[in-house]
Amino acid sequence: MTTSPRRRSPRAIASPWQAPAGRAEQRERKRQAVLQTAARLFNERGFHATSLDDIAECLHVSKPTLYYYVKSKDDILLECVRTALALMQAGIADVRQRGGRALDQLIACMRIYAGIVTEDFGQCVIRIGEDPLPPPLRKELRRLKAGIDREFRHLIEEGVAEGSLRRCDPKLAAFMLAGALSWIGRWYRPDGPLTAAQIADQGIALLLGGVLAPAAPAAPRKRSLRKAAA
Amino acid sequence: MTTSPRRRSPRAIASPWQAPAGRAEQRERKRQAVLQTAARLFNERGFHATSLDDIAECLHVSKPTLYYYVKSKDDILLECVRTALALMQAGIADVRQRGGRALDQLIACMRIYAGIVTEDFGQCVIRIGEDPLPPPLRKELRRLKAGIDREFRHLIEEGVAEGSLRRCDPKLAAFMLAGALSWIGRWYRPDGPLTAAQIADQGIALLLGGVLAPAAPAAPRKRSLRKAAA
Repeated sequence: MTTSPRRRSPRAIASPWQAPAGRAEQRERKRQAVLQTAARLFNERGFHATSLDDIAECLHVSKPTLYYYVKSKDDILLECVRTALALMQAGIADVRQRGGRALDQLIACMRIYAGIVTEDFGQCVIRIGEDPLPPPLRKELRRLKAGIDREFRHLIEEGVAEGSLRRCDPKLAAFMLAGALSWIGRWYRPDGPLTAAQIADQGIALLLGGVLAPAAPAAPRKRSLRKAAA
Repeated sequence: MTTSPRRRSPRAIASPWQAPAGRAEQRERKRQAVLQTAARLFNERGFHATSLDDIAECLHVSKPTLYYYVKSKDDILLECVRTALALMQAGIADVRQRGGRALDQLIACMRIYAGIVTEDFGQCVIRIGEDPLPPPLRKELRRLKAGIDREFRHLIEEGVAEGSLRRCDPKLAAFMLAGALSWIGRWYRPDGPLTAAQIADQGIALLLGGVLAPAAPAAPRKRSLRKAAA
């Protein structure tokens, strides 16, 4: 069997038609723009108060054009929430894979969580949630969320085992941390006095250390002991 | 002007008709049953997946009967959320009026908050929220919520001033506490391993003291200082 000599393709000239790969990429870019715009409108006005017409208007396209990218308003919400949860999952998986102290991993995961809930898709998870969706889709999203909760629980268990975290009910603690971080997605405003990163830093510090001042009666004792020891 | 002699009413006999006061009371009792049943269904199945027919069926009445007590599904949700928020407000106002240390007031208010979000109406606030409602009603509910947030913020400011709480951004701290407590309303199950009161106790302790173990390196130093002082 002889190999036929390789034919050289003619030198490329700019085609007025897009290559299939470019078309697929552009379609995906436009689909993302639809989702992002929708997420922002849902978060600002509420899911029910936002129509497909509103989304189309924001993007300067007609409603039929939208249907080329998405099936329905429910479908948009599903995709927004799914994207945010997938980002969280991927971020947490990455932290877990890199390993290290459970406490450091927990802090890294809290930072990822806080970051995502201040973004458009993440805010959808918190502000709109899965309630408007039909039961099978709600179930899928709950499954994704449960996976994230489980990761937090494991990290807390490991933190207690390594001695960096207080003994506690890891399930309850995981929910309390996730709850406080989730809530950021409700009250965060991009034009507020603190950036998303500042909120994450201060919020995480508060959850780690608590709001109580170091016990008042202990303080003078420690000082006098230090003096005594000096 | 002379006062006419007071006529003694005839000795009461049991009337087969209800006294107007009794009728109003019974109507209110039935209205509350409609709201409570609806809240439970909203929380279990979701607001969208619950129809007025479902609510009527649960109460063994016809849908037209429901309309004697409520105007619409939106109206029911509004009343459920409004009731929960009014209970919180009243509870907080009561704590504030009794006064005392800001820290103790804060703990009492957190307990009230945690208690309400584990009940039917309170769960509606957290699980459904105001999103399904038309804008003017959403605005009213947000105003009520903002009032509650403000009370938490003031309590934290006072706690920092009295030295019982760490220096912090009171607005951020208030949102973090309220968020963690609110989230309880999402994950709490009456048939779960912890009672609502246990969750409140452990959850509040965790927020006050944080999840970090007391700093490991500090502990031996304190012990050696104590020894030195002994």
